[in-house]
Parts: sequence; C-alpha cells; structure tokens
Amino acid sequence: MSQKRTGHTHVVLETQEVPPERVDWFLDHVQATSPCLVMDLSVVHENYVEFAKNFHNAHIYYAVKANPAAEVLSTLHGAGANFEVASVPELLECLAVGAHPGDIAYTNPIKKRDDIGKAYALGVRAFTTDSAPDLANIAQVAPGSSVTCRVAVTPPGARSPLGNKFGCSQDMAAALLREAARLGLRPEGVAFHPGSQQLNPHAWDTGIELSAQIFAELAAEGIELNSLNLGGGFPVRYIEPVPPISAYVAAIDGALDRHFSAGIPAIRVEPGRAIVATAGVLISEVVLVAKKAASDTHRWVYLDVGRYGGLAETEQEMIAYQLVTGHDGPNGPVILAGPTCDGDDVLYRKTPYSLPLALRQGDQVRFLGAGAYTASYASVFFNGFSPMATYYIPSQSD
Amino acid sequence: MSQKRTGHTHVVLETQEVPPERVDWFLDHVQATSPCLVMDLSVVHENYVEFAKNFHNAHIYYAVKANPAAEVLSTLHGAGANFEVASVPELLECLAVGAHPGDIAYTNPIKKRDDIGKAYALGVRAFTTDSAPDLANIAQVAPGSSVTCRVAVTPPGARSPLGNKFGCSQDMAAALLREAARLGLRPEGVAFHPGSQQLNPHAWDTGIELSAQIFAELAAEGIELNSLNLGGGFPVRYIEPVPPISAYVAAIDGALDRHFSAGIPAIRVEPGRAIVATAGVLISEVVLVAKKAASDTHRWVYLDVGRYGGLAETEQEMIAYQLVTGHDGPNGPVILAGPTCDGDDVLYRKTPYSLPLALRQGDQVRFLGAGAYTASYASVFFNGFSPMATYYIPSQSD
Repeated sequence: MSQKRTGHTHVVLETQEVPPERVDWFLDHVQATSPCLVMDLSVVHENYVEFAKNFHNAHIYYAVKANPAAEVLSTLHGAGANFEVASVPELLECLAVGAHPGDIAYTNPIKKRDDIGKAYALGVRAFTTDSAPDLANIAQVAPGSSVTCRVAVTPPGARSPLGNKFGCSQDMAAALLREAARLGLRPEGVAFHPGSQQLNPHAWDTGIELSAQIFAELAAEGIELNSLNLGGGFPVRYIEPVPPISAYVAAIDGALDRHFSAGIPAIRVEPGRAIVATAGVLISEVVLVAKKAASDTHRWVYLDVGRYGGLAETEQEMIAYQLVTGHDGPNGPVILAGPTCDGDDVLYRKTPYSLPLALRQGDQVRFLGAGAYTASYASVFFNGFSPMATYYIPSQSD
Repeated sequence: MSQKRTGHTHVVLETQEVPPERVDWFLDHVQATSPCLVMDLSVVHENYVEFAKNFHNAHIYYAVKANPAAEVLSTLHGAGANFEVASVPELLECLAVGAHPGDIAYTNPIKKRDDIGKAYALGVRAFTTDSAPDLANIAQVAPGSSVTCRVAVTPPGARSPLGNKFGCSQDMAAALLREAARLGLRPEGVAFHPGSQQLNPHAWDTGIELSAQIFAELAAEGIELNSLNLGGGFPVRYIEPVPPISAYVAAIDGALDRHFSAGIPAIRVEPGRAIVATAGVLISEVVLVAKKAASDTHRWVYLDVGRYGGLAETEQEMIAYQLVTGHDGPNGPVILAGPTCDGDDVLYRKTPYSLPLALRQGDQVRFLGAGAYTASYASVFFNGFSPMATYYIPSQSD
C-alpha cells in the first residue's frame, strides 16, 4: 500500500498493518500525548483470523505478555482465542474480559506456589513446568491438573534464544512427566520454544523430533501424552523481510509427519508478536536533531521515547523497527537515542538508519509494528518520564 | 559489623550501609510485599552529610534520577542539597518537597522546548546544553538564564561510559558558550561526566584539563566563566571494593590545582548513586531453586524480581550487588534469574555467585546497596508484574 496520500514516506506496508490513514484519522480526533501507542483492534482481529486460518489444525493460545491490554484481550476473546499467561495478574486480565479459565494455560515455568494455588482457585487446570520443585508445587496446590513439560531446545536463527533460562533436558522432561502421573497429575504433553522472532521456519524441527522421542518413550511405559505445544516465535516484518507464515506451517507439518508417524497429537501454538505487533504504531516526537562535533558525519536524533520508555526490544538493536516521518528525502545517516540521561538509552547506533535531512524538533516519527512488547515494558518513573499512553482504534467488526 | 545476631551471613558491612537489624525491625512492623525496596532515610542523610564534608568546597546537586522518591528528596532538601533534574516531572517532585527553583538545575541536554519553557515558568534559571538547537530553545523560552555546556569526555574505567550520547566536542563547547553570550544568556561554565560508577579517581583529570582550556579560551575573548560541573559517577561498593571518596577529592583537587593555576572556579558535583545506593535494601523472594539437567553443576535460582522489575543495572552484569540470605553455608554456584518469561531476564550468569545449598523457595534474598536506579526503572506491567513497592524507614534525625 502506497503512503503517498498521507504524506508519509519510505515505507512499503504489507497486508495486515495499520493503514496510515486510519492512524491519521484517529490522531485528528484524539488529544494524544507523545509518546503513545496506537493499537488498531481491527488489525489484531484480522491477524488472529489469518493466523488461525494458517494453523487451522492447532489450538491457539495468545501469549498475553506480548500486549496485555484489556482491549486487545477482549478482541481476541471475541475472535475465539485461548490465552497463555505468565502471572496471576495476566490471568485476572483474561478473566476480566470474559475468558473461561478452562481456555487459559499458566505457562510460566517460574511461579510461586501461592500463585499456582490462586490460579487453581480461579479455575485454571493447565500448567507448564520444567523442574521438579515446580511440579511438586503444582501437585500440592493444583491437584489433578494437566501438566505440560517444557524441554530446552536452542535452534540457530532465533533473535532471542530462550533455551538457557527455560526448559529442561530431554531425560528430565520424561522423568518429570512420569513423576506427574505418580503425583496424581495428568501428564498432558511436551512444550518447547524455538526463540522469539524466529526467522528460520525449520527451527521447530529439532524440538518436534525430540518431543516425539519423549512421547514414544512414555507411551512404551503406558503413559499416553495428548498434546504438543510448539510455543511462539513466529516473526513479523520489521526492517527485514521474513518468511510468510505459510512457510512455517509447511515446515512444521513436514516435521510432524516425519517424527510422529504413529499419529500426530493435538497441536498448540502460542503466538504473541505475530498477532499484535503490526496492529500497533508508536508515535514519538523528535526532541532534538544535533551534531556534537563539526566533523560529525551523522546526526543524533533524540526522540521522546527510548529503551526505558517502551522500546526495550531495541536492546542490542535486536528489533529494528520501520520508521516513518512526514518528510520526503533526501536522507542522511542518524544515530537514534531516547530522552533520558542514561548513556545506554540509545536505540540504534549500528543499524544503518537514514532519515530525512529536513527532520526537525517537534516532528513526528512513527515506529511501525510496535504493538508487541512495548507499552507494558515502560518504566514507571525512570528519569521522571511516565509510561506512555495507549490508544485503541475500535475494531471495524465491532 | 557482624551480622551473626540477625542470622544473615556472608556480608561484611561498611559504614553508612543500612544496618540489617533496622531492616529486620522494620519488616517486623510492616506488611511488606515482595519484592520491595526498603530505604533507610537516616542513611540517605548520613551519606549526604559525609559526601558534603568531603566536598566541602563544592556545591552539591543531587541527581534526582538515582532515586526520585519524595521521601528521599525531602530528606536531602532538609540536609541542604541542591538538585539536578532530567525532566519536568522530576522538577515538580523537587518543588513539592519545598526546594527553591533557584537551587535546581535542569541538566538533561535532551529536552523539549516546551519543557524548557515550563521549567522557566516554574523559576528554574540554570540549564545544561550540548547542542546548538537546544541552546537556541533555551534562549527563546528561558531568556537570560545561565547555561552550562557539557563537553564529551570518555575516560577509561567507567562501568557505563556516557561520552557518546552526551557532550559535544571541545571546539563546539567553546562556540556554544560564545553563542550563549550573543543570545543574551549567561555563559556559566563547563560540565562533563566521567561515567557512572567510576572506579578510577583520576578519571576526572582529562575533563578538568579540557575544561580549563575552554575557560582560558573564552576568558581571552572577555567571556568569564564561573563554574565547573564535575558531574557524578562517584562509586559505591557492590561486590568489589571501591576507592574511598577522599581519594576522589584528592585526585580532583590535584587536577584543579594543576590546570586552573589562575584561580579555581566554583565547583559543582552531581552525586546520585553515592548518596542513595547504600540506603536501600531490595527484598526479594526465591521463587524456585532448580536444576534443568541431571548433569547441571550449578543451580538456577529464580527470584521474584529481575531485570524488568527494578534490577535494570544488572544488564550485561554491570552492577553486581552483594546478596544476603538467611542461611549459613556451605555454598554452591548459581545462575540468578528473574521471574518473567523473557529469556534475557537473567541477572547473573557470568559473575560467579555462590549461595547456600540450603536455599529454598520462599526464602528471602536481600540485595544490598540497591537504593539507586532500581524502583523507578521497574516496568509498569511487564509479564503482569507490578512495579515494586518502596518503604521508608524514617530518618533518626527527624
């Protein structure tokens, strides 16, 4: 979609991104403060429908941590999503929009025993674990619940490998599921996560193979597992192209056919970024454009949002957002930084961003694809800056 | 001070740290949630008095960003501190505890023109700048104000070098101060910052030398600068010993004598960490202690606070806090991690922490020296976790 009509330049939008004219229309009608996040709930809905169409054989659990806003959860609940939560407050947010506790899984392997008990009291019966003490806690305060064991997999290609902090060894996973049965819990299945913003569709292969071995090992002992949780990690386009979601489905289906020849279990997926990222546009303002020495070849562009104000995923420049300004070129190289007195609050120093030479203080800079892992990360009062506001464009299907 | 009486072990307290028995007494009387930060306002007061005694020839501006709590600001205002602020909300916090706007400097070189105007309307007349557009904004909306120009210095030894984001070249600093005079502003002096938690007392030498050259250059043109701002960066002890503050005073005095032979200007310092860090104890709870494979030689210790809950300075393990548990040894190696579903939420993987083998879920782990750059960094709702509460032990001098 061309942006010529609205005066924004240098971005080619893909499908299922917020149309810039809808953001313009919205901002014309709202006294928005800067910085802020504008979420288009229509796009959340469309992304979910599209994702569900691709994964039509899977049970979809939205990863609430990606964007826990009530408006987002309500939209997804209306679209039929299940939810995976990292904490009791996230669980309460889901229940508050009408989600049934039977459609919610408490998937954080790190949880206080009291919190497991609270979730159980609220009706949750599905837990993910990766360690013996957590399993013992579940057995004690959530008796009879179903338990999925997360196994560590560290495939190449993930922008944020998770294997070190989460998941246990294959042997331990089998032992924990065995122990779950002994403790009166229901050993439900195996989970793994290939890493966030995973660019390689085949990154699921190893986890699927390893899970199939655990299924087979336990089946031989009379323990029938029911489901395989493929985690999240499905990428969205930031500045670099990513494979289409259909490539992930094809790669995963192929691996399932290869490794589960005796029958494919129920499949669960936990998309977060893939559902909400492209629904969000982060609106920021240029605080200053400056050179710091006569010899500088680049400009410093300081924005009113930075790493501590919601752009936490720019740490080590892991996520490089598409930026849109209201100017046409010519462009020149910039270093982008946030507004705080913190030397680490620099967004992009190595990623070669180039912005219009006409850019001035007070101008707006939009971060596309900013609906995931942004507003809820913002610091509560770092350097005196308040967490950004979030605005919601109602779903057109409402 | 021995901790045998209170059952806490493995820590040798230095002077001006929170006595553990005061924290124990306080926690016995308060229904504290975990995690939380306990600030002993007596220690804030004592640290300020001690720092001021060492820097008895300097004007002291407390760096509000280190801990912007009203209770802290009120204590320091009572002790006679000036304040340096990074934003208008920080300024408002200072005014709310009774600070006079004439005792407050707006030192963030990155500020919106509107915010400069707001500060001016509230009575602030001292600004720090490092770029031409910021200087033009000051001249426009804060006419007649005094301006300090920040120059870039990157000495070795700082744990967090700031030179790249802040400060301009020496030539540009002179030009900006010249321009300030032309714009009807008062060119007040030069500022630099040697980097946070600076372990080398001689790290100020280069900045002092460079500043003296700017003073001399402008004096030759008839522009008399009045003050030199040495920034902050004075370290506190975490797990590694640091030189005493007197070593910094001696090194700085020596450099001033060498480079300002014609007369030493008024000196300003901006301590933050050195005033509040040792006044704070962060109380956390062990969520789980787990091994993830039979072959693991270390234990994973998951706490209910992590990098996104207030321990932001553990990024790249820059700050390694002293930890205290209620157990005696024997100890064994651990990896420490936070409670979120984020793979990067690991506190210490490389720093060789060793904690009691008896450590179990539900046990308390205390982070000493946690009064600076913690509570105000906490995310607003990341993974559903609320920002930690802060409690204040009243100053004994109140």
